[in-house]
Amino acid sequence: MITHRSFSVEPWVIREMELDLDLLAQSESVFALSNGHIGIRGNLDEGEPHGLPGTYLNGLYENTTMPYAEAAYGDPSTGQTVINVTNGKIVRLLVDDEPFDVRYGTLTRHTRVLDLRAGTLTREVEWTSPAGKRVAVRSTRLVSLTQRAIVAIRYEVEAVDPVAVVVQSELMANEALPAAPTDPRSSHPLDRALVAEESATSDAGVLLIHRTRLSDMRVGAAMVHSVEGPDQTLVESDAGDDVARVTVATALSAGERVRLTKLVSYGWSSSRSRPALHDQLVAALAGARRVGWDGLVTEQRAFLDGYWAGADIEVEGDPQVQQAVRFGLFHIVQASARAEQRCIPAKGLTGPGYDGHTFWDSETYVLPVLSYTYPTAARDALQWRATTLPIAERHAAELGLSGAAFPWRTIDGEECSGYWPAGTAAFHINADIADAVVRYLDATDDASFETEVALPLLVGTARLWRSLGQHDMEGHFRIDGVTGPDEYSAVADNNVFTNLMAARNLRAAADVATHHPARAHRLEVTSEEVASWRDAADAIVVPYDPRLGVHPQSEGFTDHAPWDFEGTPADHYPLMLHYPYFDLYRKQVCKQVDLVLAMVLCGDAFSDEQKARNFEYYEALTVRDSSLSASMQAVMAAEVGHLDLAHDYLGEACLMDLRDIEHNTADGLHLASLAGAWTALVTGFGGLRAGDGIMRFSPRLPEGITALRFKLRYRSRRIGLEIGPDRVLYRLLEGEQMKISHHGETIDLGVEPVEREVPPVTRRPGPSQPPKRRPAAHHASARSAQT
Amino acid sequence: MITHRSFSVEPWVIREMELDLDLLAQSESVFALSNGHIGIRGNLDEGEPHGLPGTYLNGLYENTTMPYAEAAYGDPSTGQTVINVTNGKIVRLLVDDEPFDVRYGTLTRHTRVLDLRAGTLTREVEWTSPAGKRVAVRSTRLVSLTQRAIVAIRYEVEAVDPVAVVVQSELMANEALPAAPTDPRSSHPLDRALVAEESATSDAGVLLIHRTRLSDMRVGAAMVHSVEGPDQTLVESDAGDDVARVTVATALSAGERVRLTKLVSYGWSSSRSRPALHDQLVAALAGARRVGWDGLVTEQRAFLDGYWAGADIEVEGDPQVQQAVRFGLFHIVQASARAEQRCIPAKGLTGPGYDGHTFWDSETYVLPVLSYTYPTAARDALQWRATTLPIAERHAAELGLSGAAFPWRTIDGEECSGYWPAGTAAFHINADIADAVVRYLDATDDASFETEVALPLLVGTARLWRSLGQHDMEGHFRIDGVTGPDEYSAVADNNVFTNLMAARNLRAAADVATHHPARAHRLEVTSEEVASWRDAADAIVVPYDPRLGVHPQSEGFTDHAPWDFEGTPADHYPLMLHYPYFDLYRKQVCKQVDLVLAMVLCGDAFSDEQKARNFEYYEALTVRDSSLSASMQAVMAAEVGHLDLAHDYLGEACLMDLRDIEHNTADGLHLASLAGAWTALVTGFGGLRAGDGIMRFSPRLPEGITALRFKLRYRSRRIGLEIGPDRVLYRLLEGEQMKISHHGETIDLGVEPVEREVPPVTRRPGPSQPPKRRPAAHHASARSAQT
Repeated sequence: MITHRSFSVEPWVIREMELDLDLLAQSESVFALSNGHIGIRGNLDEGEPHGLPGTYLNGLYENTTMPYAEAAYGDPSTGQTVINVTNGKIVRLLVDDEPFDVRYGTLTRHTRVLDLRAGTLTREVEWTSPAGKRVAVRSTRLVSLTQRAIVAIRYEVEAVDPVAVVVQSELMANEALPAAPTDPRSSHPLDRALVAEESATSDAGVLLIHRTRLSDMRVGAAMVHSVEGPDQTLVESDAGDDVARVTVATALSAGERVRLTKLVSYGWSSSRSRPALHDQLVAALAGARRVGWDGLVTEQRAFLDGYWAGADIEVEGDPQVQQAVRFGLFHIVQASARAEQRCIPAKGLTGPGYDGHTFWDSETYVLPVLSYTYPTAARDALQWRATTLPIAERHAAELGLSGAAFPWRTIDGEECSGYWPAGTAAFHINADIADAVVRYLDATDDASFETEVALPLLVGTARLWRSLGQHDMEGHFRIDGVTGPDEYSAVADNNVFTNLMAARNLRAAADVATHHPARAHRLEVTSEEVASWRDAADAIVVPYDPRLGVHPQSEGFTDHAPWDFEGTPADHYPLMLHYPYFDLYRKQVCKQVDLVLAMVLCGDAFSDEQKARNFEYYEALTVRDSSLSASMQAVMAAEVGHLDLAHDYLGEACLMDLRDIEHNTADGLHLASLAGAWTALVTGFGGLRAGDGIMRFSPRLPEGITALRFKLRYRSRRIGLEIGPDRVLYRLLEGEQMKISHHGETIDLGVEPVEREVPPVTRRPGPSQPPKRRPAAHHASARSAQT
Repeated sequence: MITHRSFSVEPWVIREMELDLDLLAQSESVFALSNGHIGIRGNLDEGEPHGLPGTYLNGLYENTTMPYAEAAYGDPSTGQTVINVTNGKIVRLLVDDEPFDVRYGTLTRHTRVLDLRAGTLTREVEWTSPAGKRVAVRSTRLVSLTQRAIVAIRYEVEAVDPVAVVVQSELMANEALPAAPTDPRSSHPLDRALVAEESATSDAGVLLIHRTRLSDMRVGAAMVHSVEGPDQTLVESDAGDDVARVTVATALSAGERVRLTKLVSYGWSSSRSRPALHDQLVAALAGARRVGWDGLVTEQRAFLDGYWAGADIEVEGDPQVQQAVRFGLFHIVQASARAEQRCIPAKGLTGPGYDGHTFWDSETYVLPVLSYTYPTAARDALQWRATTLPIAERHAAELGLSGAAFPWRTIDGEECSGYWPAGTAAFHINADIADAVVRYLDATDDASFETEVALPLLVGTARLWRSLGQHDMEGHFRIDGVTGPDEYSAVADNNVFTNLMAARNLRAAADVATHHPARAHRLEVTSEEVASWRDAADAIVVPYDPRLGVHPQSEGFTDHAPWDFEGTPADHYPLMLHYPYFDLYRKQVCKQVDLVLAMVLCGDAFSDEQKARNFEYYEALTVRDSSLSASMQAVMAAEVGHLDLAHDYLGEACLMDLRDIEHNTADGLHLASLAGAWTALVTGFGGLRAGDGIMRFSPRLPEGITALRFKLRYRSRRIGLEIGPDRVLYRLLEGEQMKISHHGETIDLGVEPVEREVPPVTRRPGPSQPPKRRPAAHHASARSAQT
């Protein structure tokens, strides 16, 4: 779908029908496979040509130097960047001594299929060599969701003409990377990041172990093969410092095949010894060999069947959204399933963008999806945050604050932000983590999580807010000089989003501490402290501009000059690549939702009328230079009655990568936007607002979507909604009877489905966006596709 | 005076009575000689030991790379740093083959005297070599104020015991520099910045020409000598790439002397050829040889006699201040006399601090002194700004603004600030330049300057303000998101100082354009534009906090939490070396005067009662981590009646370097603080407020100063004030009758002196400063010294 010529729209697969080398880098991100522990980009089997080779291990990084033209106290001096580790997916092919390379000879057929139910990427090629010899190649690869350390590839060559064939399966470390682009959103690739420690060959396979130069981490990959081919097929292996190779040489008559099944295991550690890592790699291979290729494929599908049973969404009337939302949900589970107390980076493990860092996107965009579809992954991600509490507490102390200050961007928990106004000052990440804790707790009622993870996270972040804010002379609780979600504003007083989310954080900490007094006592929480949290939350400042009848996103915002949208050429977006922050910060222009996000997440703080007016006001200022914006605009547009506009934003959010809307899908997928597509559907058109043990729905569909069906998990239950234009059917698919709410009416949902009417929506005149920044009219294309 | 042990307090000299190697670097700054074109640090003749060797040429710099951990649009990528050029002051001495080095043998006497009237640094040494041979060495050096390119050194060795003596006079390029300190206020020294182009020897002397690596500038030094010594004194010369040397070898009997007179010329150019530069160096030496050593010494004193006739200040009752204020005035004239359309750096040419950059200090602190004491230097400095208008206009356009945006820090006019919140955002520098233009114009009535320099500078800066600010819905003119003088706040709305100074800038531009309609027309100034400047100035927003009855320095400032002064240890100052900007910006704490500076420079905008209340409020918040603060606190303290406190701040300002109060005098002198000492005396205790062609005085002395006499130049006149505790005598020393004002009474001052009473001052209870940041009680030590 990056171009319609190459990609088709189908409900359960992403199919590339021809190879467009200009889209190679983007397709590598789209076709990336991952289980949250290992990520491999969708590079061609033969390694070249490539947009960007990439194999990543979650949590493995190299240290980088963070320089400053003018250094200041507290600037982090050491950063972290994800590294391209040993490439285990290379399978080279020589046909009568001619290397198979799509740039030479003739490619008569080339398809790739990412199967969202099978969890595999399959490629089918027919190629005529420059010498006129024809072969057909079929490869299938998977990154196992059930065996964390394992990548498996099946590679099959069929001769059309009689040919001599050599297949070389490799492990290759320290691949050359393309030069660094200048876009600040991309990565800082390192040259030869790995130092060789061990290379070994044996009957069982080959193995390479390396060390990072600065971060002092050890990383290894090992592989074994089974080969099916004609008699007298030669198989041999060799290994050097940075390359280990298994070579298969044979001669095929017309119609004859050779088939290689390659199992690769990965491991890394910052503490275990080289022999221990060696053994771990070999052990992982043994586990995979036990079940074999077929077993891995079967396990993979079974795992995904279980996932889709609690996560699938059906979108009738809009096949593009149908495909895209499943694509997004697939990548969400890929990024998180086996992350297992490591972070979920902004791009998952699909590319090196943002240096592989995780941001607040994880808690605010990805975890809501996981909490209701695959809650154990949400728990894992929050447990990872909890393991970094000591770092966050030290960081808070460095800043002169109490409690815990989590990093704006990081891989291992250390702050890696090199521009504090849009980094350290964006303290809302702490409330975002607390919000994710509260949501997960509500979605699961997970008692051990509550005491072991939620309590320390909530107490640490509540203490942060209490020390960051202060009561003014009138007794209001202010939080000054922080940066909210909108990155075109910074370091302002009383950001509405930050203040409301901080208040939620403070109240949640007070509630959980009150429920677990003994545990809280161990954290030295006193009743005076809890009272001070509640006081601060109740007294929180929420600025309001009575002249305009809207909330300024921070104090003074509505006094600023509006951005000169008319004078801004279309090719000057994203603005931050064409205007200095100085200029952006002092004007009314939003990179992304800020006050609107406050209305989505803290809706109770606003009246319906305020929501409508605020939404309209900020629509005219929001340029969506961030991929975090459209999905939340979809949710609020749906709530205030702009259903077609919500549909347009849904389209933008879910097609972010399949259409490469921000022109940087090459660096990796925008997980938050993909997650936001789910949110746009479920909390936008489904109207989901859960909390206090009850799921509340207010469904309403745009005209372009004729039916919306989705499944959710909630407190050990599974429920399904079938939403039509006028009626909605609620079904309890699994688990005990539960209370839900439909447009304010409480319903006891048991074995019997419950049907309700969808009340008509009061349609309002559509608000206007900045010139040239209106979203594509997706709703119209969906509607015209139906007719 | 850095320690009382080594330095004496005398009215016209700085005398070092013994050599303390721990104070070497500081003494090199204090004893630096300069004429504004060349600067040489007070290094020992023999080159070693040194704190920091230093020879600087105004305007000559090397480019540096400015890195960013997270780059953003508009960040300057190339910086500039002053470089240590060819060292021409080295004269080495060997006594019976033993190198004269103060660290070896026995130093029986070592004095250095900086003579503020002669403009020379004289050193007298008696030394016994490790082998027991005694010599007396006397050297005198000067950087000629009359011959811009010339440094002259007379070096004399007298044998006490019979000895063989070798004197080596050198030019040395690419000296090794000490490692860079980590203090952000210091410099970024470059290793081997110069590439050799030519070295030559001839009968007439030796010469070295080099090129900078990146900035592509050519720099040369040449020297000639005359030698007086016993017969059979050998003189020879040699030259290599980086060293040129003249060697004098002789044998002295007891009491016999050898005397070397060394003339050094310097030149640099970014455009002239090597032969042209060679000729220029030789020509400068010819000019110096024509007048000879005695002629240079005579010219030097005559120049300074002329300066002191219009600049001297006598302070009775406080000998420390007496010495320090003359020391300051001497360094001000050294820094500016021959700068000749180059900048006046924050440290003059006395050291590499702040990379040799100029800041707003020049216009706001140094030029007021020069405008009333040596106005041609003020004119030169503003003409330099005018030559950089094209760069400033380009910079404004890059920022999306109209007119001219002058750089926060620079050598040649390009913005070199690597941290925009405290750099580019500090737009007040543009109004500061305009203010200096207005002050110089008022002080001189210089008609050609008005049309050629003032008009384009005022129009360019007025256009900047008009585009930077905007009218709000009520018609007020706001300037949002800028940084005022206080560097512990940044990027705030409606900074009072900035707004009032911008209004002055806009009005001045309107007035000068109205007076010169044809010239203004050439700059495309229309009457509509002029009207819009006046409208904006009249409508400027000046925030006021009625709850507290004070002006917030920027909007919202008084709502912020006060800094935790009690919890801040004394050794955590300066705060910016111990706390992140994030924390400083969001609290009520001032690095330096901001609102108080607005009251000093724009006094008419405040009532007396407001001044008193504001002063008291900000006193409690101002930590004086900047050397730009104390002098202006002295002025306002004097105005609102805290005369002893004003005296204390005067002491701090003028002793900044002689006492090394900020612990970085080693990097160069704090010219703005030294200039501020003059301001504290003349505008503080003298009460000078000039404007509209009239000098207004409101003299009042603190008890610790029994009499204050000073001279000023104003519109081709020289006037003198003699202020006592109760009476003041005004004298017209030169020029036509003029109007002055004494405490509001207008006086026609002609040949007859006019005496007036000093009205009694209403003393108020002294305000309090932050704990541990009260200034030293200088007034008490001055008073006790009198009794």
